[in-house]
Amino acid sequence: MRCLACKKAVEIKILYPFCRECFLKHYEERVQRLIRRFKLLVKGDRLLMAVSGGKDSLSCANLLSRLREIFNFQMEVVHIDVGISECTNFRTESVVRKFCEERDLKFHFVRLQDLLGVNGDLKTLFKKVRRPLCSTCGMLKRYALNKFAREKKFNKIATGHCADDITRFFFKNWFSQNFDWIAKFKPLTPSSHPKVVARIRPLFECLEAENLAYAKFNNIVIAGCSRCSYFLRKDKWNDLLQLVDERRPDFKLNIVRGLEKIEIKIKKSPRVLKECSSCGEPTDQEICAVCRIKARLQGLNS
Amino acid sequence: MRCLACKKAVEIKILYPFCRECFLKHYEERVQRLIRRFKLLVKGDRLLMAVSGGKDSLSCANLLSRLREIFNFQMEVVHIDVGISECTNFRTESVVRKFCEERDLKFHFVRLQDLLGVNGDLKTLFKKVRRPLCSTCGMLKRYALNKFAREKKFNKIATGHCADDITRFFFKNWFSQNFDWIAKFKPLTPSSHPKVVARIRPLFECLEAENLAYAKFNNIVIAGCSRCSYFLRKDKWNDLLQLVDERRPDFKLNIVRGLEKIEIKIKKSPRVLKECSSCGEPTDQEICAVCRIKARLQGLNS
Repeated sequence: MRCLACKKAVEIKILYPFCRECFLKHYEERVQRLIRRFKLLVKGDRLLMAVSGGKDSLSCANLLSRLREIFNFQMEVVHIDVGISECTNFRTESVVRKFCEERDLKFHFVRLQDLLGVNGDLKTLFKKVRRPLCSTCGMLKRYALNKFAREKKFNKIATGHCADDITRFFFKNWFSQNFDWIAKFKPLTPSSHPKVVARIRPLFECLEAENLAYAKFNNIVIAGCSRCSYFLRKDKWNDLLQLVDERRPDFKLNIVRGLEKIEIKIKKSPRVLKECSSCGEPTDQEICAVCRIKARLQGLNS
Repeated sequence: MRCLACKKAVEIKILYPFCRECFLKHYEERVQRLIRRFKLLVKGDRLLMAVSGGKDSLSCANLLSRLREIFNFQMEVVHIDVGISECTNFRTESVVRKFCEERDLKFHFVRLQDLLGVNGDLKTLFKKVRRPLCSTCGMLKRYALNKFAREKKFNKIATGHCADDITRFFFKNWFSQNFDWIAKFKPLTPSSHPKVVARIRPLFECLEAENLAYAKFNNIVIAGCSRCSYFLRKDKWNDLLQLVDERRPDFKLNIVRGLEKIEIKIKKSPRVLKECSSCGEPTDQEICAVCRIKARLQGLNS
């Protein structure tokens, strides 16, 4: 088989057969087109890239770091340590730190334990206050990321969410009828409140398999398997979408391209954000979920 | 295994295990709830039910005929003969006619050949004017159904479209980015123009397998396999959804229940209907698609 673009020998076939150079060109151009089309990055932006240390966020960070001059924006990187020993790969911090040094990116390290003012393993603590592990961790990460970005004067946050993630979220949230969540699945989620930092998802149209290939071809050292991706592989939606993928490799791409085009409305009144009366962070409740967890954790010690 | 509702021996398991009586009760109640929730039928409605002769439309017609007194509406039945010998099951007309006689439903028979003013087999004629068979047939059926219903003073048209159809349409149209079509996938599509009759889909939340079981348990004679269902079985989306169904039997039900709840908007301006300058039927073009086909067919003879 020959490369679709230049007819050299094929080195990779995910959606189309490509040689290494044409794959990288095609991948980078697709992301650049998305950035232009949705104005994800404009001159003068201060971007905080959230890096978990996996293939998706590191590929995204690598590509964005190369685009700094083209799109004229500043960029720094943050890694959030979730404080759950079972879920933490202890290589990650040094891998991401080294990645940043090599690309002249300022590296930040944020610990959820510091955010909550606790020391113990969060899995044990969540169990004590009867909170589900993964959704609590996810909620805390979103809170920490937004608060950190705003306080450090970033006007945009980038994450490595890709077409596989978005498609999985789409079906999960459709089934649990969280249509207000689905409505936000766009390459750019603008700020909905003065204290909410806009989000961009430059890999919205990229597949996990493509991100992995991009990381490999660029010799990017990834931190490797974390507990998060271990749970993901056991996710039923992941299995099902894998099955669909074998028949229709363009399935996820078509789902996300549809999401880019449509607006989903629901009849019920939309969430109105105000400021938490305890910490001042944006929330639709009187006291935000993080402060409620904090209070329960403090209750444990007293 | 025992019936979920009454603990008698199970006779059928599609989504839940039921005995025959509880299955029929559950099926009918689900359709009735949908009719109430979306006001599909109200007192004084004149309903035209389109019956192809298959399990879905005959089950729907049977159930609706039983609900005439409860919801206080009038109902008649139409069968459209598509005039394509390869796609026509010649038993259908008599099967549907007998079905109607047994239920005191007035039966109408409409021929697409009469609509077009031609005599030959439509497959041959469509080939001569280079029109694709299935989509042209579908378009003509929609036109004929709407025109016939309006001229006979019906204010609603019912079709036997079920959750399997809607889910398949949903993915097909998402992939071809026909979001204005998807936006119409509701149990009720109100009239969008004085010449367009409202459509109702009472089986929106019923599965094909349930319709088949309902028909069997009620000893409804169905006309059997037509070329339409033969093509459908070869449809790639059908295969794929079958595969998904084996893992998640509630998949289609969740898709349609989501569609009931959301409004899908697209940025482009919506289709504006006017009247065809030739036949006066609603269209978004100067001359409607049916009149354009007619003109080309007449061109063949001259």
